[in-house]
Amino acid sequence: MKIGIIGASGYGGVELYRILSLHPEVTEINVYTSGAEEIPYEKVYPHLYGKTTARLQPLNPEYIQNENDCIFLATPSGISARLTPQLHNEGIKIIDLSGDLRLKNPNQYTEWYKKVPAPETILSQAVYGLSELQAKQIKEGTILANPGCYPTATLLGLAPVVKENIVKPGSIIIDAKSGVSGAGRKPNLVTHFVEVQDNLSIYKVHEHQHIPEIEQQLHDWDSQIGAITFSTHLVPMTRGIMATIYVELKEDWGNYRLQELYEQFYAASPFVHIRTDGTFPSTKEVYGSNDCVISIKKDPRTNRLTIVSVIDNLMKGAAGQAVQNFNMMYGFKETTALDMFPLYP
Amino acid sequence: MKIGIIGASGYGGVELYRILSLHPEVTEINVYTSGAEEIPYEKVYPHLYGKTTARLQPLNPEYIQNENDCIFLATPSGISARLTPQLHNEGIKIIDLSGDLRLKNPNQYTEWYKKVPAPETILSQAVYGLSELQAKQIKEGTILANPGCYPTATLLGLAPVVKENIVKPGSIIIDAKSGVSGAGRKPNLVTHFVEVQDNLSIYKVHEHQHIPEIEQQLHDWDSQIGAITFSTHLVPMTRGIMATIYVELKEDWGNYRLQELYEQFYAASPFVHIRTDGTFPSTKEVYGSNDCVISIKKDPRTNRLTIVSVIDNLMKGAAGQAVQNFNMMYGFKETTALDMFPLYP
Amino acid sequence: MKIGIIGASGYGGVELYRILSLHPEVTEINVYTSGAEEIPYEKVYPHLYGKTTARLQPLNPEYIQNENDCIFLATPSGISARLTPQLHNEGIKIIDLSGDLRLKNPNQYTEWYKKVPAPETILSQAVYGLSELQAKQIKEGTILANPGCYPTATLLGLAPVVKENIVKPGSIIIDAKSGVSGAGRKPNLVTHFVEVQDNLSIYKVHEHQHIPEIEQQLHDWDSQIGAITFSTHLVPMTRGIMATIYVELKEDWGNYRLQELYEQFYAASPFVHIRTDGTFPSTKEVYGSNDCVISIKKDPRTNRLTIVSVIDNLMKGAAGQAVQNFNMMYGFKETTALDMFPLYP
Amino acid sequence: MKIGIIGASGYGGVELYRILSLHPEVTEINVYTSGAEEIPYEKVYPHLYGKTTARLQPLNPEYIQNENDCIFLATPSGISARLTPQLHNEGIKIIDLSGDLRLKNPNQYTEWYKKVPAPETILSQAVYGLSELQAKQIKEGTILANPGCYPTATLLGLAPVVKENIVKPGSIIIDAKSGVSGAGRKPNLVTHFVEVQDNLSIYKVHEHQHIPEIEQQLHDWDSQIGAITFSTHLVPMTRGIMATIYVELKEDWGNYRLQELYEQFYAASPFVHIRTDGTFPSTKEVYGSNDCVISIKKDPRTNRLTIVSVIDNLMKGAAGQAVQNFNMMYGFKETTALDMFPLYP
Repeated sequence: MKIGIIGASGYGGVELYRILSLHPEVTEINVYTSGAEEIPYEKVYPHLYGKTTARLQPLNPEYIQNENDCIFLATPSGISARLTPQLHNEGIKIIDLSGDLRLKNPNQYTEWYKKVPAPETILSQAVYGLSELQAKQIKEGTILANPGCYPTATLLGLAPVVKENIVKPGSIIIDAKSGVSGAGRKPNLVTHFVEVQDNLSIYKVHEHQHIPEIEQQLHDWDSQIGAITFSTHLVPMTRGIMATIYVELKEDWGNYRLQELYEQFYAASPFVHIRTDGTFPSTKEVYGSNDCVISIKKDPRTNRLTIVSVIDNLMKGAAGQAVQNFNMMYGFKETTALDMFPLYP
Repeated sequence: MKIGIIGASGYGGVELYRILSLHPEVTEINVYTSGAEEIPYEKVYPHLYGKTTARLQPLNPEYIQNENDCIFLATPSGISARLTPQLHNEGIKIIDLSGDLRLKNPNQYTEWYKKVPAPETILSQAVYGLSELQAKQIKEGTILANPGCYPTATLLGLAPVVKENIVKPGSIIIDAKSGVSGAGRKPNLVTHFVEVQDNLSIYKVHEHQHIPEIEQQLHDWDSQIGAITFSTHLVPMTRGIMATIYVELKEDWGNYRLQELYEQFYAASPFVHIRTDGTFPSTKEVYGSNDCVISIKKDPRTNRLTIVSVIDNLMKGAAGQAVQNFNMMYGFKETTALDMFPLYP
Repeated sequence: MKIGIIGASGYGGVELYRILSLHPEVTEINVYTSGAEEIPYEKVYPHLYGKTTARLQPLNPEYIQNENDCIFLATPSGISARLTPQLHNEGIKIIDLSGDLRLKNPNQYTEWYKKVPAPETILSQAVYGLSELQAKQIKEGTILANPGCYPTATLLGLAPVVKENIVKPGSIIIDAKSGVSGAGRKPNLVTHFVEVQDNLSIYKVHEHQHIPEIEQQLHDWDSQIGAITFSTHLVPMTRGIMATIYVELKEDWGNYRLQELYEQFYAASPFVHIRTDGTFPSTKEVYGSNDCVISIKKDPRTNRLTIVSVIDNLMKGAAGQAVQNFNMMYGFKETTALDMFPLYP
Repeated sequence: MKIGIIGASGYGGVELYRILSLHPEVTEINVYTSGAEEIPYEKVYPHLYGKTTARLQPLNPEYIQNENDCIFLATPSGISARLTPQLHNEGIKIIDLSGDLRLKNPNQYTEWYKKVPAPETILSQAVYGLSELQAKQIKEGTILANPGCYPTATLLGLAPVVKENIVKPGSIIIDAKSGVSGAGRKPNLVTHFVEVQDNLSIYKVHEHQHIPEIEQQLHDWDSQIGAITFSTHLVPMTRGIMATIYVELKEDWGNYRLQELYEQFYAASPFVHIRTDGTFPSTKEVYGSNDCVISIKKDPRTNRLTIVSVIDNLMKGAAGQAVQNFNMMYGFKETTALDMFPLYP
C-alpha cells in the first residue's frame, strides 16, 4: 500500500513515519507539508539523516489523491476540515489525527475551536476511532476521526464504569497531565526549554477543546452522565499523558468487583493493561509504545473511585492509535507495526 | 541569637542554613546530623565549599541545649517525637519541620506514620504553624509544628472558602503534584534520575500521611467538612508543589464574589498572592521564594470551583515557613531573611 | 536459538531483552540475575507488566549452560572474569558487555579496575568486538568482548585518521559526555535526580577505566600514537554519549580530503553515518537506535581537527552493538533486529 | 542611586533586576525594553506578579539619561554599539552586558558579529570588566564592557598559568558547555523543550564570537599565546557553564606547584574558589550565585594540564559580574548584593 502523511513536519507526523516504516503492508510512504518547495525530510528531522531519501512535498490535493491509497492527516486543527472533502473518495480512506472531524455537532466545533467546521456530510461519515470500543464502526469506516490524546487516556479509563452505568451523573473530575510534545513543534514561549524545565503549569482551565469530545463519547455510553470537570497540566517531560480521574458511583461496588469489571472489559484488548497488583503506572512505562495502562482504587474513607490511566501522547494518543485503526480498517492484524516494548529507560 | 539545625544534611536543613545565613538577628548557626563524627559541612554539600567553616556535629541533646537559643528539627519522621522532650525547656524554643508534632491525636499518628508518637504533653503544647492563619498561637508558642509541604499549599488554597463555611461537606478533591526534592536526599530507585526523568508517577494513592494533617485543620475551620480525596504525584523537577483543588459550594457564589473573598482574605499576607487577571501560576514562579500563589475559577458548566495553589516545597513548604514562624515567635518582622524574589529562570 | 541474558536487572540487560525480542532467529530468551529467588521480570521493570511472563532466575552456571545456545553477560565489572570460564564451551558462545575481557594485559585490568582479572586463556580467546572494524575476528570468535560506550564513540570517530597514520602522536584529546543511564541502576547520590537535574559534572578526571581500552585499540592501529587525554562528564539526560575529539595531524590535509576519507571509510557500514552538510549531530538523533553519527571539521586558525561522534550508550554503546556482533558471529544479517529509526522526539 | 536596565525583558535583564533589588545603595530601578508601549513588568515575568509595580518602558535615550545615574545594557548584540554614544555622558556610567564593546578592533567585531561596530571613541574608552583581573581599570572606567559568559569561565581558569607565562603557545583547547538560558528568551527550534530535553548538542564549531574575546585577553597577558581551539555545547539544563580546558605547559611544573599558584592567585578574590581536595566542581554548585569554582589536575601520563571552571552563566557570566563591576566602579564593597549562597538543590 502507498500511504500519504500530511503534516509530516510535526511530531505526530514523524511518529507516523517511524511506525509505518515498520509496517510490512506499507510499500511506500509519501510525506507532505505546507510550504511551496520540496525539501529533504532529513533537513527537517536530522535524526533521519542518511536513513531516508524521503522528501517533504507541497500540499497538492490532486497529486496526493493519485499517489496514495490511504491518507493520514497530522495537521493542526482547521486544516482537515477543509482538506478532507478534497481528498476523500471511493478509493482513498482518510485517517485524521486532528480535532476537526471528532465533534458531530459543527456548532460545538465552532464554539470550542473558533474555526470553520467541516461540512456536515463529512462529519456524518466520520467514525470516532477509539480502537478498543468502536471496532465494528472502524472496520466499516472510510473517514476516521482519530481521538485526541487526553480523550483517549480518559475514555479508556472511564469506559468500564460508564458503560456499566454505575457512575453518578456530574461526578466526573479529570485531572490530566501531559508532556510537552503534545504542544507541537512550533516554537513559542510556552514550549521554551527555560520556561518549561523544572516547572509545572496548568492551562486552559475549564476551556480545553477536548472537553466536548470526551463528553460526546461519555454521553453515547450513558446519556445521563452530565458535564465533566477537566484540567490540563504541562509537565516538564517529552512524552506521556496521565489522567487521574475521580468519580462517585451510584452503586456500592467494592474494589474487588471493580477490579474484575476492568480486567474483563479489556481482556481481549492487546494494548490495554489493567494493573492487578495494587501498583499504579507511571508514564515512562509506555514510552514509545501503543499501550494504555490503567489502575483503579476506591477509597473506603470517601467512597470515591480513583482511576489512573497512562499513555504515550504521540503513540496511543496519536500516531500509534491511528495505525491501530488503519490496521482495523484494512483488515490487518491489530498489532501490526505496533508490537514492540516501550523504550525503557 | 544562636540557632541549631538538627538534620542539616537533608534538603530542608540546608535550605534553613541558606536562609538563616541571611538573617540579621542570627549570629551563629550550629548544624547537627546523625553520625558519630564531626565532618565539614562542605564535604556533604559541595556548593558550600570554601564558603563556610561550619561542621556537622553529632546529635548530643545536652550539648545542643547549651549551645543554642532556638532549635530547628529538619529530621525524618520518628526522630523529633523522641528528641523534642529532651531539647525543649523554658529557654529553648523548638521548631519541628517533620510530621511528628502535627497530629493532635497520637493514635492517628501511629496509624498513618507507623511509628511511636510523641508524648501527649508535647503534642498538647505544639502549635500548628500555618503562618497566615495561626498568628496568635504562633506568637505565644514555644513548640512549633511546621506544616507539611502538601498541607501548606492545600490549606492556604482552601482556607477562604472553608472558613467562610460555603464548601459542601465531602466534596473536596486535591490532586497534588510535587518535585523530587520532597522525597529527600537518601538515594533509592524512586529518586534515581533515570527512573524519574521524562516520567510522571502517582504514589501513596489514598494513603499519604498528609491526609489526616489536612483534615485536622479543615475540621477546625468547619467541623462538618468531612473526608477529603487526596492524590500525590511525582513530577520530574527539583522543587515545587502544585495543588489542584476541586470543591463544590453550598452557596451559589459567582467568580466575582469568590475572587473578592480570596483577595480580602489574604490582603495583609505578604507571601500569599492571589492572581486577579484570570491567569494561573506555575511552580517556577515561586522557585526559591517563600511565596504561595493562588488562582481560582468556578466552572459555570459544572458549578464546581477549581483552586490552584503553588509553593516551593523547600521554602513555604518547609524551611521558608519555618523561618517565617521563627520571625513571628520572636517578634521579628515576618519577612526577615525571606524578602527576596524567586530565582527565575 | 535460545539466548541467556545474565544481568538482566540492569539497564544494559533490559535493553538486550527489548532488542532480542524483535529478533526473528531468537525463539527463547532466559533472564538471570544475582539473588537467590526467581521473580517475575515485570516486578523489576514495570514497563514489562502484562507483556511478558519471563522470570528473573538465579545465577546457576550449570543450568544456564544447558538452557541456552548463546549467553550475553550484562554484569558489572568483576563478574564475567569469573563466570566466563564456567559458561563457555564448544557449544556456547559468550558475548560480554562488561569491561572484564577487553584488556589483553591482565595487569592493566588490575591497575584500572582494581579487581581480579579473567584467566589469560580466556583473555587470549576474547575478540574485541568493535563491529565496523573487526568483522573478520568477530565472525570467527566464540568469546566476544563488547566495547565500552565511551570507547565505541571515540574509536569510531578516530579510526579513519589513526588507521591512515596521519595523527600526530600524543595529540589526541577526548572530551566525552554521557547520559546518566551509563552509571547503572543502582541508586546512589551521584544518580539522585535532585543532584543530577540542572547540573553538569565531570568525573574520574584522567582516571577512567576506558582509557587503557581506547589506547590498546589505537595502538593496534598505529603503534606510535601515544597516550590520550580523556575526560568524562555526566549530563542531565537519560541516554546518549557525545565524544568531542581534538587531534593534530602530521600531514596537511584539508577539510575536503578528510571528509572524503571518512565517507569512504564508512561507506559500507550501515550504522555509521558521516555528516556531509557541515552540520553536527546531537545525541537525541540516535536515541534508541544503533547508529553512530560523526562530523568532522578542521579549524584553519589552529590546524587542529575536531571530530564529533554520538551514539546511544545503551545501544551502539552496549546492547545494540552486542546484538550486531551476535548477528555477525552467527552469520545473520548485520542489521537484524536493529533496523529501526531512532525514537524522536 | 537610580539605575536603568535596558533589555529588562531578557534573562540577563531580569537577573539584574533580582540582584539590584537587594542592593542597599540602589533606591530606584527603571526597566526598559524595545516596544512602543509601557507594560507592567509582571506581565512579562509572572514570577514578579504582585511583587513589583515596575513597568517596562519604551527606549527613549533622552528620558533614560534624565531618569538614571547608571545604565546597564542587557541587550542583544548590535544595540549598545548604537545606544552607548547616545546614553553615555559625564554623569552617566554605562555597563554593557552585550558583546558590542568588548573587542578593541572594530573590524574584528564586524567579522565575528556581522554587525555594525561601535564608534572607536567608545571602544577606546570601554574597559573590559573581568572583575578579578582588571580592578584598577574598572574603578576608573565610565564605560564597562562586561565579559561574556564563556570568556569569564575560561579566562578565570586560564589566568594564573597564562599570566605566569608557562603555557605552550597554540596548545589551549577549551571544551565549553552551557545551559539553555544562555541562548536567550526568544523562542526558536534550538530552545524548544522537546528538542533540547534529553539531548546534548554542539554548535558554532570553530565559529563562536567569544573566540576573539578570549584571545584578545589572553594575548594581553602573554603576547605569544597564539590561537585557541574553542567548542561550545548546549546542555539540557537552565543555568550553568563548565569550561573544560586542556593546556600544555612550557615548564615542568607538578600538581603541587600549580595548585599553589592557583590558590595564591585568587587568595584575595571573594568569588573565585579553588578546590584543594582533589574534587571537581559541578555547575549546580554555583546555581544563582556569583561564584566561579576552579579545579586543576595535571595528567602524569600526558603532561597535559586539565582545568575545570564553572560559573552560573546568568550571574558571574552576566548580571552578577555586572553588579560586581558596578560595585567596584562606584566604590561599594565588591560583594554588595552578591553575598548569598547558591540555591541548592
